[in-house]
Amino acid sequence: MVPDQDVLSISSLWSQLTQCAAQEKALHLADLFEADEQRFERFNIDACGLLADFSKQRMSDEARDLLVALAEERQLRHWLDALFDGAEVNCTEGRAAKHWCLREEAGHAPQVHEQLDAMERMVERILKGHWRGVLGDAITDVVNVGVGGSDLGPLMAAFALQCSLPPEGQARPRIHFASSMDGSQVSQVLQELNPRTTLFLVSSKSFTTVDTLHNAKTARQWLARGLGLDYASESLLRCHFIGISANPRRMAEWGIMPANQLQFWDWVGGRYSLWSAIGLPIALTVGMDGFREMLGGAHAMDLHCRSMPWQKNLPVMLALVDVWNINFLKIPARAVLPYDGRLKHLPAYLEQLEMESNGKSVSRAGEPLDYDTCPVIWGEVGPNAQHAFFQLLHQGTQPIACEFLMTARRYTEDMHSDAAVELEGQHALANANCLAQSRLLALGERALDPKVALPAYKRYRGNQPSTTLVLDELSPGTLGALLAMYEHKVFVQAVIWGINPFDQWGVEMGKLIATDMLAVLTDPDNAEGLDASSQALARHIARKQKSRD
Amino acid sequence: MVPDQDVLSISSLWSQLTQCAAQEKALHLADLFEADEQRFERFNIDACGLLADFSKQRMSDEARDLLVALAEERQLRHWLDALFDGAEVNCTEGRAAKHWCLREEAGHAPQVHEQLDAMERMVERILKGHWRGVLGDAITDVVNVGVGGSDLGPLMAAFALQCSLPPEGQARPRIHFASSMDGSQVSQVLQELNPRTTLFLVSSKSFTTVDTLHNAKTARQWLARGLGLDYASESLLRCHFIGISANPRRMAEWGIMPANQLQFWDWVGGRYSLWSAIGLPIALTVGMDGFREMLGGAHAMDLHCRSMPWQKNLPVMLALVDVWNINFLKIPARAVLPYDGRLKHLPAYLEQLEMESNGKSVSRAGEPLDYDTCPVIWGEVGPNAQHAFFQLLHQGTQPIACEFLMTARRYTEDMHSDAAVELEGQHALANANCLAQSRLLALGERALDPKVALPAYKRYRGNQPSTTLVLDELSPGTLGALLAMYEHKVFVQAVIWGINPFDQWGVEMGKLIATDMLAVLTDPDNAEGLDASSQALARHIARKQKSRD
Repeated sequence: MVPDQDVLSISSLWSQLTQCAAQEKALHLADLFEADEQRFERFNIDACGLLADFSKQRMSDEARDLLVALAEERQLRHWLDALFDGAEVNCTEGRAAKHWCLREEAGHAPQVHEQLDAMERMVERILKGHWRGVLGDAITDVVNVGVGGSDLGPLMAAFALQCSLPPEGQARPRIHFASSMDGSQVSQVLQELNPRTTLFLVSSKSFTTVDTLHNAKTARQWLARGLGLDYASESLLRCHFIGISANPRRMAEWGIMPANQLQFWDWVGGRYSLWSAIGLPIALTVGMDGFREMLGGAHAMDLHCRSMPWQKNLPVMLALVDVWNINFLKIPARAVLPYDGRLKHLPAYLEQLEMESNGKSVSRAGEPLDYDTCPVIWGEVGPNAQHAFFQLLHQGTQPIACEFLMTARRYTEDMHSDAAVELEGQHALANANCLAQSRLLALGERALDPKVALPAYKRYRGNQPSTTLVLDELSPGTLGALLAMYEHKVFVQAVIWGINPFDQWGVEMGKLIATDMLAVLTDPDNAEGLDASSQALARHIARKQKSRD
Repeated sequence: MVPDQDVLSISSLWSQLTQCAAQEKALHLADLFEADEQRFERFNIDACGLLADFSKQRMSDEARDLLVALAEERQLRHWLDALFDGAEVNCTEGRAAKHWCLREEAGHAPQVHEQLDAMERMVERILKGHWRGVLGDAITDVVNVGVGGSDLGPLMAAFALQCSLPPEGQARPRIHFASSMDGSQVSQVLQELNPRTTLFLVSSKSFTTVDTLHNAKTARQWLARGLGLDYASESLLRCHFIGISANPRRMAEWGIMPANQLQFWDWVGGRYSLWSAIGLPIALTVGMDGFREMLGGAHAMDLHCRSMPWQKNLPVMLALVDVWNINFLKIPARAVLPYDGRLKHLPAYLEQLEMESNGKSVSRAGEPLDYDTCPVIWGEVGPNAQHAFFQLLHQGTQPIACEFLMTARRYTEDMHSDAAVELEGQHALANANCLAQSRLLALGERALDPKVALPAYKRYRGNQPSTTLVLDELSPGTLGALLAMYEHKVFVQAVIWGINPFDQWGVEMGKLIATDMLAVLTDPDNAEGLDASSQALARHIARKQKSRD
């Protein structure tokens, strides 16, 4: 293992970066572009089907060089080697973080490929209509029951790739996602689906997640009622439940039949697990070939990240840009803005990936940090966000970093042929808006020509920094590369900040307290000793529930 | 009109609040609760079917009193009177803001009730199956084509109220939303729906919104193709398009038949328009009685806001708490966390309502402000967010304000009777988690009993402030009250900050530039004179598009 380092903020590079930011704070992006026609050439990286344009970041060559030096000082090379050697980079849990191993080529990691093969057999049976419900019906609807990493990744990717049809002769079932513990999605499923033709995937790394187990239990009771079977019926379990977990014992205890179990491993973090069998809904969307193509795209990004010098390294430069914005320009938030609606769920996916990984405030050595780590990340499909919160980006009081995503090619799939002309026009319109917004955010009213005097409420000060990511097209391969890029970016940031991105102790204590609170809601007299607010709220709820009866 | 005031940050109350915050910064919520068992009693408001608990805000009685005095100093009473008198509170556009007028009782505002009646006739025809497609089929699917205020409100409310069935004998069509200009939703509609049974609502205040007009055009071409009719066919327009706009002339020009036009008015801001005919998808979900019940709930909140003293006034106290957090405790973001999945789209709705209204940095008088206004607002269904970004709330480096929402009663509707036991259990679990998280965020590890020594990475410092809102139940009436509460909160904040919440000049310039960019994408040679980044991106996209051919 690489030894823990000195506290970051006393490094001399840190002071130099702080000074550099102070000097450059007065610089406006409009001036940077006016002074330098070659700015784009020096601030873009094109790799693995993705182009990243960093030229609209408020960053000079000097700042960039200092950041690259900082990466060196923080021993980024050693840490990347540690990650890819399978060292225990997750120090508080004593584990490696080997999600990259899930996309290694055949010949490596036999247990991974064994599970991929098992997954493939299930996917084939379902897509070819050979998987049957207990009364002999083909499966028309698949419900993914999972939350967090067992929900956001599969949901985001399956939604993004809906236009990549599965191979000829295979029929994609409708895919639903039930994640929330309050039953709001599972109750819809009970209303709308037919138990005879519905298959549930129960996905949970530990197979102890209460949210998921409650949803699964409600679903199982609904199936038993609807099919006239016992809750414990083996045929019900065999025909209507697949389990995906790193804990086969608990899967079996719950009732998942051995042949219906897919497995992954301790060394795959939940938020890094869509590459494993957790990705089954993705494979059901694009077929197993498509799923393997996604793994291939991610693997290409792994190789890029390991081999390229920092200045030409996509995840590394993305990470350094964020560190610059957060720690030196003091920008407290980042908006993720896909201008392709198929990436609608990407912001929520990245909220988990980044905020759960790097929302930390102690170093690996257990020291409190005196600098900021992960900012607030949120987002929305770009054109929709223009009609929602772009007002604040353009004329609000806070600096905010933006990340634009767009696709160069689109609507070329056969399924759109009928309406291709209109839809390609809409695609061009969206891309034009993407370019317009990043230009306006950067230059402010100086983007307007001719320059005119404006009343105060019509002025745009500009200088909001952004990165633009252009995908050649949105395919399983480019999506895989994009997501792997974000994963490694998060790791690089954690290395710079000296934190562990692979644990999540901040989500544990709430689970304990929730158990107590359930007892309090059952009988508010159990609330004694709690704070006045919790007590009063529990009593209020009990009173309102009684008033119905 | 009330005259514009002195710059806020030189008010003596502002200095007192700054001092008060400095003194109280060291206070921990755990200490506040230990010191004072009556804290909840003094910091809650119960009105219109909503309980708001402010006791977990980091606020002393002194701070609260100073904030209330600030509201007085900023002439809140005068401004509320101006709003409800229909004065020109939207100064840069010379308009009143009379969304409240849309929920006045019958006998007031005859033009409003005329439109409600027209809406009711359409709703009845559709729900009773009397509205027919051009080939005589009943309507099974309704697609709302709109964006921003013509999308987020109807989507959020229709989704929230799905469990409130329309009256007996009426069948609700499936309702879809197509908002994004890139065609990602409308292309799904083309794949999945039947033109014979599909009705489109084209909603745009100006009826010039390019996003909406492009989606509507693509839909109209699809209908014409699918039904074997001309694009200009009158029967196609009569049977398959309803228009909703404040601009009847443009609606007519586009081809909406006079009988299919619903109207609202200049004095209704887009983001305040779900109470008008823009709410048609809501009325199609809950029936017209349900829609009127929603208006009634909002009207009750209007009366509450006008009549209650500031300390007992829900929107006013919500606004003052936010001002305290933003301007004095310097908390740069707020998370909106509904623990009832039916409120899934509320965060996106509030992102628009708040960030578009108050994401401003010049005063009404045109002076630049030297204090922050609207923070970044984002959110997610609470239990899901626990598995996504709560890590950052508990152990990140930034202070963040949270807003929890929960419902006391749920799953009492007939439609759930089969699975009521399981689902009520899930509801209790979600509520228990809500109480657990707000307690843990407030108290940190001191919420644990017995107190134990923890390693640094397991520690929770707490002191993250939150408000909890409990709805008696989620009904059209309580939803109406909740949304009106947020609307008035936004207005009260704008009064404190001295800004105009009803304009959105920050979204105009991007539209102009997008037109230029479309020409650039069509031929990158048009890019000359643009910044190096825009030029290079346009060329890159053109190259990638060519490489397909």
